[in-house]
Amino acid sequence: MRVLIHIDNLEKWRAALTKRLPEADIVTSSDPEEHRRHADYLAVWKPPSWLFENQPGLKGIVNLGAGVDALLATPKLPENVPIVKLRDAGMAPPMADYVLYGVLHFQRDFDRYLGDESEQRWQPREIVEKSDWPVGVLGLGAIGSQVAKRLAESGFPVHGWSRSPKSLKNVTCHHGEVGLEDILKQVRTLVTLLPDTPRTRGLIDAERLALLPRGATLINPGRGALVDETALVEALGNSEQEGHLRGALLDVFETEPLPEDSPLWRHPRVRLTPHMSAPTPFEAAADQVVEAIHSWEAGETLATVDRRSGY
Amino acid sequence: MRVLIHIDNLEKWRAALTKRLPEADIVTSSDPEEHRRHADYLAVWKPPSWLFENQPGLKGIVNLGAGVDALLATPKLPENVPIVKLRDAGMAPPMADYVLYGVLHFQRDFDRYLGDESEQRWQPREIVEKSDWPVGVLGLGAIGSQVAKRLAESGFPVHGWSRSPKSLKNVTCHHGEVGLEDILKQVRTLVTLLPDTPRTRGLIDAERLALLPRGATLINPGRGALVDETALVEALGNSEQEGHLRGALLDVFETEPLPEDSPLWRHPRVRLTPHMSAPTPFEAAADQVVEAIHSWEAGETLATVDRRSGY
Repeated sequence: MRVLIHIDNLEKWRAALTKRLPEADIVTSSDPEEHRRHADYLAVWKPPSWLFENQPGLKGIVNLGAGVDALLATPKLPENVPIVKLRDAGMAPPMADYVLYGVLHFQRDFDRYLGDESEQRWQPREIVEKSDWPVGVLGLGAIGSQVAKRLAESGFPVHGWSRSPKSLKNVTCHHGEVGLEDILKQVRTLVTLLPDTPRTRGLIDAERLALLPRGATLINPGRGALVDETALVEALGNSEQEGHLRGALLDVFETEPLPEDSPLWRHPRVRLTPHMSAPTPFEAAADQVVEAIHSWEAGETLATVDRRSGY
Repeated sequence: MRVLIHIDNLEKWRAALTKRLPEADIVTSSDPEEHRRHADYLAVWKPPSWLFENQPGLKGIVNLGAGVDALLATPKLPENVPIVKLRDAGMAPPMADYVLYGVLHFQRDFDRYLGDESEQRWQPREIVEKSDWPVGVLGLGAIGSQVAKRLAESGFPVHGWSRSPKSLKNVTCHHGEVGLEDILKQVRTLVTLLPDTPRTRGLIDAERLALLPRGATLINPGRGALVDETALVEALGNSEQEGHLRGALLDVFETEPLPEDSPLWRHPRVRLTPHMSAPTPFEAAADQVVEAIHSWEAGETLATVDRRSGY
């Protein structure tokens, strides 16, 4: 059996899979073409399209992350090969920490104290109680549902939204187009954790940002394509004048690394981080790759990606 | 019965106590002297010394906060009147949020990303796992113990320290002078939540800061007097050169408001907030005042402040 890897840290991955699959031939995208052709399985993150050349016998592809948008957009991706993506894989707890940090950043006015600090202004503000700070979580998959749960346990009223109806303990669940409007109208912080699909791309546009209450805040640790960045910058106002939105904490962007000329870099009410909210924990990810390959080899049914819905 | 109040928001307090003690004569420090003399009880926060003049019949003093350092330092404070301080009163949850935010600020490198942002540098860093990020909490009273518990529940290894031995679930407890050294030597973030007493004043001095591992961080939401600010600034280094400590999040200071000429205002690795980590929730505080007065009137035994130990 041959397994072909394409990701950063190729040698670390080669060692991890060799150790776990001693019977298999583990090759990487940096190996000569004759060594890596005719693979049985691919374990990949954002593969180049040439990787799919001379691969007539592929039995399965493991996407080394939770978002399959980059993989599905790759030219030459073979049509009938099943794709498995990493489930949570331990990404939910660091994501929940990131989002909780972000919600506290705004609820406890750390954003405003940062501005006060630069002007040497000592100005305590009255705290808006957590019970008066509803948070909306768009996307209730493996990660979004854990984030919603963590926020609820931390004392925030949480509204969750998904395409189809869901039910989560201590989370008010909404769904569909009408549900999205309901949720946007009442949250002080909106958290976008949807996959990047044709239906979610640009979902948070000028019109939907305008539905948020004045002074609302946005945390996007999901996918850059979910948010229309031009509309966001517009809604945030400028350094002289606060706009409809109070601020944003962004971890993902339409283009990454964020281009030098993006107005987000120096916006006074935007905090930004370089796509670090939920790195894939390596050992857990390697375990899941091996688990998927074992299941395929045993002919077991696997939860695979629905290419039409995009996740 | 006469109850004399001294605090900010005098009229709000007068109304709250009048409602709760309709039979009592509720007066404030802004009322004429002939109305406020001969009080039975005082409910005060940082009282001026003249407040104690012509008060020969005081039966009890309620300190409207958790820290009694200011009250005990007031000249003319009568010697044999029992003092009750506000217990937690709901201050622990906002304090735990503040500290959790601060620990995540450093563990997740938000401090460094803030610097990167100002230089438009896109540089993801590898996360140090929470399990490798021990946090030390000095002070395990009503508030400190709740903070330690919250950090442990959030996945951080927590070391607690108190003068005398204590035991807390999921917290490694240390005590005494030797215990303090043990804890300082191994924590990545130190949180100071001790009361301000003659024994804790200046506790975190140059020598003890040097015991912390290189790159450690400090969160002080307790009392400004606990930390020697000159030693702290020295340990932090300057904008060219990081010192022994990586950074600090400070909510309290030797002098408040923080003086304009304090080097802390513009230190690149210090975040500061204006003593907002745990405001006293008003309704809960008013309830506790009335509860104390009822207990005194009924001749019940109350947990009072030990003036010698200072808390």
